[in-house]
Parts: sequence; structure tokens; C-alpha cells
Amino acid sequence: MDISSFLTSLVTSFLVFLVLMMIFSWLQRKPSNEVIYYPNRILRGLDPSEGRGVRTRNPFAWIKEALGSSEGDLVAAAGVDSAVYFIFLSSVLTIMVFSGVLLLPVLLPVARTDHNITLKQKSNTTAFSDLDMLAMGNVQEKSTRLWAFLLGTYWVTLVTYFVLWKAYKHVSDLRASALSAPGLRPEQYTVLVRDIPPVPEGQTRKEQVDSYFKALHPDSFYRSMVITNNKEVNKIWKKLETYRKKLDHAEAVYAESKTSSKPEGTKPTMKTGLLGLIGTKVDTIDHCNEEIKDLLLKLETEQKITLREKQQNSALVFFNSRPAAASASQTLHAQQIDTWTVMEAPEPRQLVWTNLPIKFHVRQIKQYVVYGIVFLTVVFYMVPITAISAFTTLSNLKKLLPFLKKVVDRPEVKSVLEAYLPQIALIVFLALLPKFLMMLSKNEGIPSRSHIVRSASGKFFYFTIFNVFLGVTLSGTLFASLKTVLKHPSQIIPMLGKSLPGNATFFITLVALKFFVGYGLELSRLVPLIIFHIKKKYLCKTEAELKEAWAPGDLNYATRVPNDLLVVTIVLCYSVIAPIIIPFGVAYFGLGWLVLRNQALKVYVPAYESYGRMWPHMQARILAAIIIYQLTMIGYFGVKKFYYVPILIPLPILTLIFAFLSSKRFYLAFKYTPLEVACRNAKETPNMDMVFRAYIPPALVSDKFDDTEDQFEDARSEVSRTIPV
Amino acid sequence: MDISSFLTSLVTSFLVFLVLMMIFSWLQRKPSNEVIYYPNRILRGLDPSEGRGVRTRNPFAWIKEALGSSEGDLVAAAGVDSAVYFIFLSSVLTIMVFSGVLLLPVLLPVARTDHNITLKQKSNTTAFSDLDMLAMGNVQEKSTRLWAFLLGTYWVTLVTYFVLWKAYKHVSDLRASALSAPGLRPEQYTVLVRDIPPVPEGQTRKEQVDSYFKALHPDSFYRSMVITNNKEVNKIWKKLETYRKKLDHAEAVYAESKTSSKPEGTKPTMKTGLLGLIGTKVDTIDHCNEEIKDLLLKLETEQKITLREKQQNSALVFFNSRPAAASASQTLHAQQIDTWTVMEAPEPRQLVWTNLPIKFHVRQIKQYVVYGIVFLTVVFYMVPITAISAFTTLSNLKKLLPFLKKVVDRPEVKSVLEAYLPQIALIVFLALLPKFLMMLSKNEGIPSRSHIVRSASGKFFYFTIFNVFLGVTLSGTLFASLKTVLKHPSQIIPMLGKSLPGNATFFITLVALKFFVGYGLELSRLVPLIIFHIKKKYLCKTEAELKEAWAPGDLNYATRVPNDLLVVTIVLCYSVIAPIIIPFGVAYFGLGWLVLRNQALKVYVPAYESYGRMWPHMQARILAAIIIYQLTMIGYFGVKKFYYVPILIPLPILTLIFAFLSSKRFYLAFKYTPLEVACRNAKETPNMDMVFRAYIPPALVSDKFDDTEDQFEDARSEVSRTIPV
Repeated sequence: MDISSFLTSLVTSFLVFLVLMMIFSWLQRKPSNEVIYYPNRILRGLDPSEGRGVRTRNPFAWIKEALGSSEGDLVAAAGVDSAVYFIFLSSVLTIMVFSGVLLLPVLLPVARTDHNITLKQKSNTTAFSDLDMLAMGNVQEKSTRLWAFLLGTYWVTLVTYFVLWKAYKHVSDLRASALSAPGLRPEQYTVLVRDIPPVPEGQTRKEQVDSYFKALHPDSFYRSMVITNNKEVNKIWKKLETYRKKLDHAEAVYAESKTSSKPEGTKPTMKTGLLGLIGTKVDTIDHCNEEIKDLLLKLETEQKITLREKQQNSALVFFNSRPAAASASQTLHAQQIDTWTVMEAPEPRQLVWTNLPIKFHVRQIKQYVVYGIVFLTVVFYMVPITAISAFTTLSNLKKLLPFLKKVVDRPEVKSVLEAYLPQIALIVFLALLPKFLMMLSKNEGIPSRSHIVRSASGKFFYFTIFNVFLGVTLSGTLFASLKTVLKHPSQIIPMLGKSLPGNATFFITLVALKFFVGYGLELSRLVPLIIFHIKKKYLCKTEAELKEAWAPGDLNYATRVPNDLLVVTIVLCYSVIAPIIIPFGVAYFGLGWLVLRNQALKVYVPAYESYGRMWPHMQARILAAIIIYQLTMIGYFGVKKFYYVPILIPLPILTLIFAFLSSKRFYLAFKYTPLEVACRNAKETPNMDMVFRAYIPPALVSDKFDDTEDQFEDARSEVSRTIPV
Repeated sequence: MDISSFLTSLVTSFLVFLVLMMIFSWLQRKPSNEVIYYPNRILRGLDPSEGRGVRTRNPFAWIKEALGSSEGDLVAAAGVDSAVYFIFLSSVLTIMVFSGVLLLPVLLPVARTDHNITLKQKSNTTAFSDLDMLAMGNVQEKSTRLWAFLLGTYWVTLVTYFVLWKAYKHVSDLRASALSAPGLRPEQYTVLVRDIPPVPEGQTRKEQVDSYFKALHPDSFYRSMVITNNKEVNKIWKKLETYRKKLDHAEAVYAESKTSSKPEGTKPTMKTGLLGLIGTKVDTIDHCNEEIKDLLLKLETEQKITLREKQQNSALVFFNSRPAAASASQTLHAQQIDTWTVMEAPEPRQLVWTNLPIKFHVRQIKQYVVYGIVFLTVVFYMVPITAISAFTTLSNLKKLLPFLKKVVDRPEVKSVLEAYLPQIALIVFLALLPKFLMMLSKNEGIPSRSHIVRSASGKFFYFTIFNVFLGVTLSGTLFASLKTVLKHPSQIIPMLGKSLPGNATFFITLVALKFFVGYGLELSRLVPLIIFHIKKKYLCKTEAELKEAWAPGDLNYATRVPNDLLVVTIVLCYSVIAPIIIPFGVAYFGLGWLVLRNQALKVYVPAYESYGRMWPHMQARILAAIIIYQLTMIGYFGVKKFYYVPILIPLPILTLIFAFLSSKRFYLAFKYTPLEVACRNAKETPNMDMVFRAYIPPALVSDKFDDTEDQFEDARSEVSRTIPV
């Protein structure tokens, strides 16, 4: 790629971004689009136009607003997890800025004034781009100029250590202050208990749990809630909700028909059979009312049965003080370690109810099976795709679906299909991958959604590094040379060193495309906007349906974080080899910070709060990127036949030591809530009933509100009544 | 070694054992020897003759008594740690008996009826012993008979897993029941706090600790004791104790002189200078009295200074209930993990006071430095010895110590010295090794003596395996081939396989010698007996001096356990190759069990109680032995060119999985006290003052007993006074 085509693609991307930003600033001013551009504010009950820049014609107002927002604003609007994500963005940004400040003015002239490439061009006909003149490739072998690059390698590493240590400390403090904030958070009074041993003769599960915890925590135990198998009751409840929605919809349709032409209106009808396509025609409103009445009765019976007979070997135990719960969740309870295992309870909204009763050893096995599957997916992901594309060759398709024959046999269709079938399989597979990884992570038996997201994000990271980064770099040679690599694992370092420099331009273009087009689309929210307006016009009749149509979702860390980490890995790996990539990295994370800050403050609504437990994962993966970078550099200096390569060998070891030290220093406070933190601002007597109610799953909440207590009467301890609530 | 010389050495050893046992049964009947053969009983205030077999003339009475003792008796007499050591002995014994029951009747005939060795003897002149005819070496290459040996390999492995799992469970229960026994054990109410941050302005260390723990544990905090730097006060106290002993001794001498000839007696005198050799002559009793008076005053002043001004960054915190202390010791306290670190307090008697104030990161560094030194010692232990022996050559000695010249130049002395000087260096080094390892372990900053012993024992194990077992087996070839091994680590397996079989007879003789002579000496206690009688006759005048002379010490796990584990490794490794070793292993552990049971019940007095925390260490090392065994077998089957060797490859992996599973299942309950266990039989209101006093170091206890409270007044919390003690 020569410099002109590179610039063309860059300018095009930039223009796309500008256009999208203009569209954004025009669309967001319309009141009817408020629910797309300010859902977070609306849901928090704020006036969407409250911000300074709203409704002004200045297309850069949102930037001012994003820059002006403090970390406190962000935590209030989007929670600690978002704030931690921004610490991640700004840390990476800082690393790149600091690296660039030294590397750009020093390394670019050093590289440009040498003439390795011109020498090579004379001897053979390989095409080199103009950008390559600014890279380490232009320095001759064994040149003393390489000393500058070697020092650059150390500089980037040290900057990273410094920034990451600071950031870890910052996140740690942020987490502590969030955990010790006043305000009632039910999960801070709750401990999740799993692997409860079989019920002894003559006791109920409930009595077993209560007597156990009453004995061990006589002063602080409040009450317990035994986890039940809610499959049946959930089914009924979902059906009930569907009918309720249908009823609301039908009533809205009926009301609409009244106002228009005939004042009596037309009652909407429906068919009772499969998907409303077959069966007898009935009045929708009457039918729904009947069904709801039926289902309510069924639900009540099923609720009782569930609470009484479907109790599982897991429970939530509530304590009447934050320190007591924090301490209990960290204490080994039973002498048999695979029974009565305790942990801090996740928030009610992120509790994965169905994973709770999975037994200790089954969880272990599931975990290792999942690890195995992920390993195979990462390494052999090409295999199923090849298999599918072999299976979906045209001749096979014709056999299976003979009616396609006529279409497929036309030459123009045929050639297109033959060319793209494997790619389509690849795209479908890549699109399904995050969901697949989420499903795998869920199947490990993890009890909280945030942990599942973290776990899936980690898996996705390994996938992108292995397949996108290494895959592109070694461009197919990896599989061919896998045998060599397995035999001599150290061979991968010179291989990386040899292959990496050639791909610099490709990755720079990739990063540029990602930030200009990607963040442009992110900011303008064109897709959700269009979907919302279509739904609003043709489908939604009630308020609830509308609200569902514009529900913004969350930042989706499971794919966002690994994608960012891929860029981090790319930029770090090229930072010394082709320092010209650094400004693009800075632009990616700078623009990302701005755009996402806007989205976090105004659009997305967090689905859960894990108080920054994502950070140790992100930090570990940045360090993994640094190690890849260091190994690459060792390899590339080797290719350049630089005698002092061994000076770089301590670097990966140093990174491992840094990783060990920082996890030793900070990690435990992420795994547990320190007692000190739980004690600060601890409320004297919280409303324990509210804590308890927060964990009742919606399907088990009775319609008659006062009844709830009775519903849970047999799922309650006797002590609770004596404690003033 | 042919069969006759082997039998000779065996019979000789056995005779030595019989003689020693006879001596034992004759000596132990004399009342004057009671303190040597029954010190444990005497110290527990029991009548030494209480046992059934005592004072009978039956030389086997002690065996009956040992066999008749229950685990409960043992725990009462020698504590849980001893009981765990016997579980170790009986587990190993069971493994060997089970292995032998199948391997001996099957493998011996299979080996004997083949004729590999006779075939080989025809072709060359290598000498083979008769014992080798019974070993796997007598089976021909590629023979189908090898299937029997392969199954034998699996059998030994499975038996080990089964026995170890059972034993782990047993030890775990034993530990739990000991920890939950009634009775006041101060360490169960105490938490050790280290890494206390610097004292804030305007507070004392004491106030800082008290206010911190009062805030976090308002209901259960009782009082704290700040660790002080006791170097000075200990020095004065030791001097004081010496003078007191001297005074007692002098008074006893004086009293003795009175009764003999002249009724007024002779007052003993001493010189005040160095070692009592120079200086003015004074009356000992007067001089000691004066010195004691002086020192008492000094001690009092120093005690006050120590308590007030020498407070360190570590403290003991006392809780008023067992569960509260157990829970607190497992809970992360501070958000900054390297401050306020907590752990279960060791017993007062095993607290390593000087290690407590070492800081978090310093401890880490010390640990890794020690690991490095141990690694170097294990691998290169020959180097310093060679250096020393080179230095102590005769010519060098003559130069350094010219007065030796005449002696050394005599030809008979010269030849002996020249032959033995390197060996002497080796012996001295080996004798110093356990002490050196103990010192190293202490320098890791470990706060309890039992942990130091565990740690030293582990180090010693690696040393014996690497240097004695591998060293003898590969007989010097290891260093020569170290380069090969480092290049191709997998080469060590065939090397082991090739070298091991040749050394079977050597190791059998070693084990036999060890149990007959070693346990004979252990039982008869000849050395302590002789030393005691000499001391009694010539040195001891007072009761205290006598008591010191017969003080029995403890079982000394630091060297005993690794030595036993060496035998375990040897027997396991040869169990299939030369099954004839199994009876010797059985004899070693059977006899060891009997003799040491006797010693544990009557002689040794435990120096500490760690409630079986030695077990996970021992279990891990038995598994390490099993892995060495499995690798050896893979190597040896390879040497035998058996096609089905790959069937053995899962074995080491299986062992690793077993190790992982059993530690996952049991280990945490060894690391922490489970809450369930702490709650069982928890005393309502213990005498907290006694708990507190138990931890006051002797040098800080004031003579005037009532004063102690005042002495510690400023090292006490104000709360304590409001709690009824």
C-alpha cells in the first residue's frame, strides 16, 4: 500500500465520521429522538435537556460536556464498572501518549535518515511503501542506531508499569469508596451458600440452613432464603406476562379504533392456535382476560409448590450488618470444604439462579471441560468453518435443496456464491462467537452475570489475539509451521519478529477504520434509531412496548473490552517497530473516550454493578499484550542481528514479576470486601425486609403484595420475627 | 554383593537390634533410669510404672503396650502432631503391605522362572547377585511377562491413592476434633496482626491497634498486645537466670560441704572475669546475690522502657470467643493488602517473636532469596565440600598450623588423613545441614516454630532425594550428564530406568541397617542415658539442673520425616523392579511404628502443637515419591523395549490430578479453622486474662506477680476493664 492510497482511506474514514457526527448533532436535537440519545437520563428521572450542550446547534457541544464530566458524575450515571472502563481507556491513552512523546521525535528521524530499504530495493524488486521508510525496517542490520530502538522498548515497558500501578491503585480506591458508600445495597448484607449437604432426617432444608447459620452467627444472622427450582413457575409467569402484554396491546388497539371512525370501535380478534395462525377466532380482550385468570390461579398453586417442594441445595443467607456479611463470606464454614461453601452474594439482578444448585465437583469438571472447548475453539476455529463451507458447496446445496437449482445454475449467481460461501460461513461463525463464548462461560456454573461477562471477555481476548493478531501477522503460516512451533516453542519469537513489520500498514488502516467508522456509528446510533422508529410506527401501541423498543442496553463489555485490548496489543507491538502507529492508537482511545463518555452519561444503562471487578482482568491482559510485545521485540532485534539482544531478555521476566507483585498487592481486595471497607459508614439498622425482598425472583412475587410474607413464611426463619425490622 | 554377604550383614544388624533391646529392657527397670525412659509420664505428673508392662522381666512388654495404646492415648500423651506422624507411618505401612500382598506372590515367581541374567552371564562376565534373579532384570526384553510388572505398577499407584485419601480424611477429622475439644487453648482466641501501618500523629501504637479493632469487631474484641523489641530485656533476663542458677548451684555445693566433714562448710568461690578463669576471687553466693539484685533493678527499668518505647508494627489481638477469632483471622481487614495482615496466632510457646515485625514485602523477598539458596545448596552441595577439602589438604594444613607438622608427617597418620579429609568435610557438612536449613527457614520470616520445622523438613526432603537417592542411583553420572539432562529434560527418565535396578541390593542393605541399628539405638537411648549419668555425677547439684539434664526433647520431625520419606521413595521405586525390597520396607515402618510409639508415649515431650498441619506436607511428598516411581517405571519399561509403555504415561498425570483433588478437598481446613469447628463446644466465657497472660514473654513477666497488670497497663485497651473477666 503506498502512501497515497493509505491517505485516501484515512480521509474517507474521517469524512464518514464527520458526516455521522453531523447527523448525530442534528438528530439528537429532535424531541422525538430523546429516548434514543438520552435514555439513561430519562430512566434516572432527569430532564434529558439538562446538560449544558443539549439543543444548541454547536455540533461539538457533546465533546465539551464529555470532557467536563467528573468521575463522580460517571459513577452516579453509569456505575463503578463504567468508571473503571474509562480508567482503562485513559490508562491506555496515557501509556500511548507517554510512549509517543519520546518515541516519535527520536525514532522517526533515526529511521528516516538510514537507507536499508533503498539499498534493498536496488538489489531486488520487493515493493516497499513510503511508510516503511519511517519504521525500524529502514535501519540497517547491526547498526548502532538500533540502540535507540532498544531504549525505546524499555521506555514503553516502564511507562506501562508506572501507569498500570497508578491505575490499579486508583481503581482499588474507587471500589473501596463505592463499597463503603452509605445507601442500602442488598448484596452487602447477603451471603450466597452453595453445596449444602443432604437434609438430615426430620428436618426441612429451610430448618437445616437456619439452624446451621444461627449456631455459627448467633448475633448477626437475620434470615435465609432457600434457592428453589423455578423452571415451572417461571414458565407460567412468562406466559402470564405475555398475555398481560397482549391484553394491554389489544386494549390500546381497541381504544384507537374507537376514536377514529365509529365510536363503538372494533374489538380486536385473534386465533388461539399455533402462532395465532390457525384455530378458532376469539375476541382477544376476553380471551386474554380468561387466560390471565386461569394462569393466576395456576401461578399461585405453582408458587406454593415451588417454595415448599422444590428447594435446592443452595441458599441466600441474610445478615443484619455489612461487616458481619463481609466477614461471613470470607470465612471457611464447614470442615468438609465441598459443603457449605460461602461467597459474597451477587446483586439480585445479576444472580444466575439456575447455576446456584450445581454441585462443587460438578462445577470443577464443567470448568475444565469449558476450558478445553475454548482451547480447541481458539486453536482450531478454522476447522468447523472449512467443514461447513465444504458441506455448503454448490453441488451439495443443489442436492439438499433442489428448488434452488434454477437460481444457482445461472452463471453470475454461481460465481458469486462459489467465491463467497466460505466467507459467509466465517462471518456467521464470527458473529455467533461472542454468544457461544457467553453460553460456554455460563455453563461453567458461575453464579453471577458480571463474572460470566468477565469470563467470556477473557476467552474472546485469547481468540482475537490468536486468530486476528497472530493469524494476520503470520498470515496463514502459523498452521503450516505449527509443527515446528510445537517442537521448538522458542521458534515463535523469531517468527513473530520476521513477520510483524510487514503488516504495519494493514494494522494502521484497521485501527483507523475502527475508530472513525466504528465510533461514528456508535455516536450517531443510527441502527437503534431506525429500529425504534419502525417499531414505534408499526408495532408498539402501549407505553410498556415503547419503553422496550428504546431500551438502550449496557456497554457490552464482553466484546468491547477484548476489541479494545486487541488494539492495545497491536499498537504496543508496533510502537517501536513503526512508531507512526502511536498517533493512531492515541486517536482511537482519545476518540473512544469522548464518544463512549457521551454514551455512558446519556445512553447506556448498566445491567449490573460489580464494583470494578473487571479491572484485574483488564490489567492482566494488558500485561499479556506487553509480554507479546517484548517477545516480538526480542525476535525482531534478533532478525536485525543486533549483538545486544540479550539486554531485552529480562523484560518478559520483569513483566511477570510486576504482574505477580501487583496482584499480590491489590487483587485480594477485589476478590473480597475488606472488613475496614464494609465497616465504614455502615448503617446501624438497615431495613432488612427490603434486603430480603430484593432477592425474591419476580415469578415468586405474589400479586397481592401483603401476601408475599405469607408466601415466604415457610421459607423464613423463626428468629426473624423476634428481630425488629 | 552375593546372597551370603547380604545375609551376613542382615543377621549382624538383627543381632545388634536384639542386644540393644535386651539392654533396654534391663536398663528401663532400674528406678534411677526412670527419667530417661519415662520422662513424658513424669512431666505429665503420672507414675512411670503405671503402664502394664513396666518392671516386668518380659523384654517384649513394651511391644504389647505400644500395640495396646489407642489414638486417644497418643493424643493425650504427645499431642495431635504425634498422632498424625503415626498415621503417616501406618499409612505407608499399609501401602507397602497391600503392595506386597499382590506383588510378592505374583512377580517373584514370574521373574525367577525367566533367565535373562543367565543368558547375559554366558555372553559377558558381569557379576550378578542371586537377589537379582528375583527382580525384573531377570525378565527378557519384550517378554509378555512384563505385563505382570505393568499391572503391578498400576496396583501400587492405586493402593497409594486409596490409602492416602483415607488418611487425609482421618487426619482432617482428627484435627477438627482436636480443634473443637473443650479446654482453653489461648491461640484459639488470638489473632496475629502484622504489617501495621505507621502510627498516626497523636496516637500511640497501642491506641492505634485498639481503636482499629474495636471499630471492626465491636462485640468480640477483648484486648491487644503490641509486639515489642525484646532484645535488650531478654539479654538482661538471661543473665539474671544464669546468676540464679549459679546461686542455686553454689548453695547446693555449700550445703553439701556442710554435711560432709566440717559442719560450717566451705563457701564456694569464683572469679569474676572471663569464663571464671581470671579476675578477683569472690564468694559466689554473695556475688550472685548482689548481681541478681542489680539485674532485677535493671530488668524492671528495661521492661518499662521496652513496653513503652520499643513497640513494633505487629500485635496480638485477643477475642472473647473462639468463632470470633477464627472468623477474624480469615477475613481481609484492610483495603491495602500489605497492611493489617491477619492470621491465626501460633501457640505462645512456638511464636517466633523476632520474626513478627518483618514487613510484608521484606518477607516476600526473604522467602525467594531463601528458595534460591536452597536450590543452589541442593544442586551444588558438592562444590563447597570440594572447596573445603581442597583447602584442608595436608600441605595447606601444614602451612597454616605448623605445630601439626610433626604429627602429620608420620606416614601412617598421613595416609589416613589424606584418605579421610574429604569424607570428614562431607560428614561435617551433612551434620550441619539440618541446622542450616532450619536457620534458612527461620530467615524466611515465618512466625511459628512448627511452620519453620515443616519448611525445613521439606527442604531436607528435596536434598535427600536429589543427593542421596538420585546421587547414589546415577552414582556420579548425574553431574557429568547434567548438561545432557538440561538440554533434553526427558532424558532423565531413561537414565533413571537404566541406573536404578543395579542399586537394589545397596538400598535394601541401607534400609535394613537403618531400621535394625537405628531403631535399636532409638529404643535403648544409650547416648542420652550415658550423658545423663555423667552430668548427674559430676555437674548437677540442684533439682533444676537435673531436670535439664534429662529433658527429653521432641520427636524432631525436621529430620525424622524426610529420612522416612527417603525410605518411602526407595521402597516405592523398587517395589515393582525388585519386589523383594517390600518386606524390608514393611519391617522398617512396622518396627519404626512400634519403637516410636513407645518413645512417643513415654519419652518425648512435644515442643509445640500444630494440630496436624504437617500432614499436607507429608502427603504431598509421598505423592512426589510416587511420581518419581512412575517416571522410573516408564524409563525402565523403555529399557526393556516393552511396546506397551505408553499405557504407563497417564500415571504421573493421574497423580497430579489426585494431588490437586485432595488438596482442593481437604487443604483449606488445614490452613484455616473452619467456623463450624470453632463453634463446636465453644466455651461461653473463657478466662480471658489467662489467655492474655499466656502470651506475655517470660522476660517481660515481673517477679511481683500482681505487678504484671500494671506493667502491661499501657499495653492494654481501655475496653478490657468493662468486660467481666
